[in-house]
Amino acid sequence: MEEFSLQLQQVTKAILADYRLNRDIDKMELFQKPDGDVVVQLLEKLRRILFPGYFREKNYRMYHVEANLSLLTEDVLYNLSKQLSRIYEGQGEAPEAAMHHAQEVGLAFLREIPRVRAMLQTDLQAAFDGDPAAGSMAEILFAYPGMFAVFVYRLAHVLYTLEVPMLPRMMTEHAHSLTGIDIHPGATIGEYFFIDHGTGVVVGETTIIGNHVKLYQGVTLGALSTRGGQKLRGKRRHPTIADDVTIYAGASVLGGETVIGQGCVIGSNVFITKSVPPCTTVTIKSQELHLRPAGDTCQKCREERF
Amino acid sequence: MEEFSLQLQQVTKAILADYRLNRDIDKMELFQKPDGDVVVQLLEKLRRILFPGYFREKNYRMYHVEANLSLLTEDVLYNLSKQLSRIYEGQGEAPEAAMHHAQEVGLAFLREIPRVRAMLQTDLQAAFDGDPAAGSMAEILFAYPGMFAVFVYRLAHVLYTLEVPMLPRMMTEHAHSLTGIDIHPGATIGEYFFIDHGTGVVVGETTIIGNHVKLYQGVTLGALSTRGGQKLRGKRRHPTIADDVTIYAGASVLGGETVIGQGCVIGSNVFITKSVPPCTTVTIKSQELHLRPAGDTCQKCREERF
Amino acid sequence: MEEFSLQLQQVTKAILADYRLNRDIDKMELFQKPDGDVVVQLLEKLRRILFPGYFREKNYRMYHVEANLSLLTEDVLYNLSKQLSRIYEGQGEAPEAAMHHAQEVGLAFLREIPRVRAMLQTDLQAAFDGDPAAGSMAEILFAYPGMFAVFVYRLAHVLYTLEVPMLPRMMTEHAHSLTGIDIHPGATIGEYFFIDHGTGVVVGETTIIGNHVKLYQGVTLGALSTRGGQKLRGKRRHPTIADDVTIYAGASVLGGETVIGQGCVIGSNVFITKSVPPCTTVTIKSQELHLRPAGDTCQKCREERF
Repeated sequence: MEEFSLQLQQVTKAILADYRLNRDIDKMELFQKPDGDVVVQLLEKLRRILFPGYFREKNYRMYHVEANLSLLTEDVLYNLSKQLSRIYEGQGEAPEAAMHHAQEVGLAFLREIPRVRAMLQTDLQAAFDGDPAAGSMAEILFAYPGMFAVFVYRLAHVLYTLEVPMLPRMMTEHAHSLTGIDIHPGATIGEYFFIDHGTGVVVGETTIIGNHVKLYQGVTLGALSTRGGQKLRGKRRHPTIADDVTIYAGASVLGGETVIGQGCVIGSNVFITKSVPPCTTVTIKSQELHLRPAGDTCQKCREERF
Repeated sequence: MEEFSLQLQQVTKAILADYRLNRDIDKMELFQKPDGDVVVQLLEKLRRILFPGYFREKNYRMYHVEANLSLLTEDVLYNLSKQLSRIYEGQGEAPEAAMHHAQEVGLAFLREIPRVRAMLQTDLQAAFDGDPAAGSMAEILFAYPGMFAVFVYRLAHVLYTLEVPMLPRMMTEHAHSLTGIDIHPGATIGEYFFIDHGTGVVVGETTIIGNHVKLYQGVTLGALSTRGGQKLRGKRRHPTIADDVTIYAGASVLGGETVIGQGCVIGSNVFITKSVPPCTTVTIKSQELHLRPAGDTCQKCREERF
Repeated sequence: MEEFSLQLQQVTKAILADYRLNRDIDKMELFQKPDGDVVVQLLEKLRRILFPGYFREKNYRMYHVEANLSLLTEDVLYNLSKQLSRIYEGQGEAPEAAMHHAQEVGLAFLREIPRVRAMLQTDLQAAFDGDPAAGSMAEILFAYPGMFAVFVYRLAHVLYTLEVPMLPRMMTEHAHSLTGIDIHPGATIGEYFFIDHGTGVVVGETTIIGNHVKLYQGVTLGALSTRGGQKLRGKRRHPTIADDVTIYAGASVLGGETVIGQGCVIGSNVFITKSVPPCTTVTIKSQELHLRPAGDTCQKCREERF
């Protein structure tokens, strides 16, 4: 036991020595870091603000919409401002100025909520209209990953346009983790947006998407190449998708100059790096398939032979 | 500070005004909504009922299988009935009738547990037999996402056949969130079902799958088109997969009239919208690939040149 | 009410009878099973040890790096050893010997932390250099799923090389659940490894990956076939990826004899089962696409017609 204790001390010393190598992972300035758990809690509270009839605090007895909303907006403003002021301090602002800045941005964010709710109502409608398996609006709000990912994206996008660093991406990555849908907060997305199933969807930072667009699982709206790395920062790298476009599962549309025209239908697994004129259906010329007896591998065939 | 407080009040007022626009997202009838957290807790408790030797309550000292099971079944029946009665009240049933209905359905659900356990034993065996990386049955139960998704699906499917709205989909979407495997509770799936890796798998509502079927990551068993939207509700839209079929990664089988015959092997990335006769191996005729020197992009080549 | 209670008792009895069928799912030896929640907590604590400036305990006032680290390493050693000794007891070791064995392995694991941190610093650098959307090193550590999955893999791999059963896979499956990235702990992966977006990535047990390799979402480094099942256990089934290779979204590289040479670029959706010489760019010969008017499905076209 003595011996283990001594060995553990040596291990601890070795790790402490390792902390002093002055690499990025060794940085210790702690107080400017946003807190991932608080970001998740903010999204929970914002969900109650945005859909008050569907999500609510547990263990309350009386439900006064107004009182409840006051508490929630105050809570969100307080916690969001706290995270923001940490970030602004980390960027060199003095504590008081950082807090003032944070509260301004926090209020600007909350002011956008009615506009975001108007968009989400159209997204909800698009999900209901687009999916024969949808039993009700409530089912979509409670269970559809696409609806959740779009809800988070729309809020994160507001923060992104307010030039908040880090937090927007932490929000969309929380949604990515829960849904497999990876929408960068910088993307611009119109009304009536629906993502069905969703796992594997990627929407890049500089993507522009119009109204009434529908994506299926595994669709990538991505960059042609990122070999340029940080040199490409801020440049347009992702495509434009016009209104009324449907993109089926596994299709990829790549490149900052690629425009998919209004009313297009992009088939499953199509790989596009050039623009497509409006009102065009694009499908893969039917795959050449190779069919042969599965006799050697099929249990049924093997059994019949004996 | 005063000023911020005033501005926050205005924001809150604007959101309250927004709540009165009478859209779907503004609906306020609260008490008929199922609780997502309770649904997740129910699945946790059901896991302990179904695999008592593998998952268990923490902080207990003595383990009396019988006493423990009694507590768990009572707990599940109580909480499930509470959720169900909310849903039935939401559909217009009187409180007492709704509770009676809920308890009947809850009991009917619990009665199916031995049948579900028999299925899951075959799924466990299929995972072990099918994956050379599987170290033990316990590893599969503790760590395999496919096993978890199928466990949740089999329970959700029982509720689906008992015509319970919303809850089954909330259950399978919880599994989807944790595993990337999206099985609609309406699908019909036989014994010895194994999904390896699983991320991106989609199994649609009206899919029928036989016994001894194996799916890999990214497989879609989907609809040909959902342009019909809610008009297609209840119609057969997804394929039939017969016994002893293996479908490799990224393949799609689409359409309500598509039947994959017994013993077929469907290769990676194959895209199928027509039936395949039994005992057939289907692969893509080998992709025409374009190879060229990567000299401009390869660091090694660049270095050798200088 | 009486009646329901009686029926519930019958249900419970039926389940108890079902437990006695002596299948794998009926096994009851409880005490050798690792605890999934503890595994997740261990990863949380290890994250604080590995990145002390970025992740930390809440509700502490003073931050003494040294004191904090001592507490954390002791905690990790204690909890890891407890899990390990359960597993070793389950494998037949006597309680005292199992605990001794567990502590030895626990210490060996902790000793590897500086080496793992050195690797993670290179992974962080690769993410920053490779992604124009990355705003800062902190954003990568807080929000990038690829960074999280690689962090978990590198720790799980240490346990795998120490021949720990079950725990390594439980760790990587936790990361798989959160990120959609499924890296088997047995894979061997060099420095400067970056996975962008990541959903759907699969890296099989016997894969070998060199330095400076970059993978995109949906890449499979897999086996050609697992029809051999448990007979293939321990055999080389997955490919070798040399240094400086980039593999774009949706590509598959399969088979234990397949080697992708240094400096290769593998394009999106390429499907490879044979080796590729160094410094080669491999792309699909451009897909033959079928374009036709979308007039019947396009709302815009329909409206213009009337």
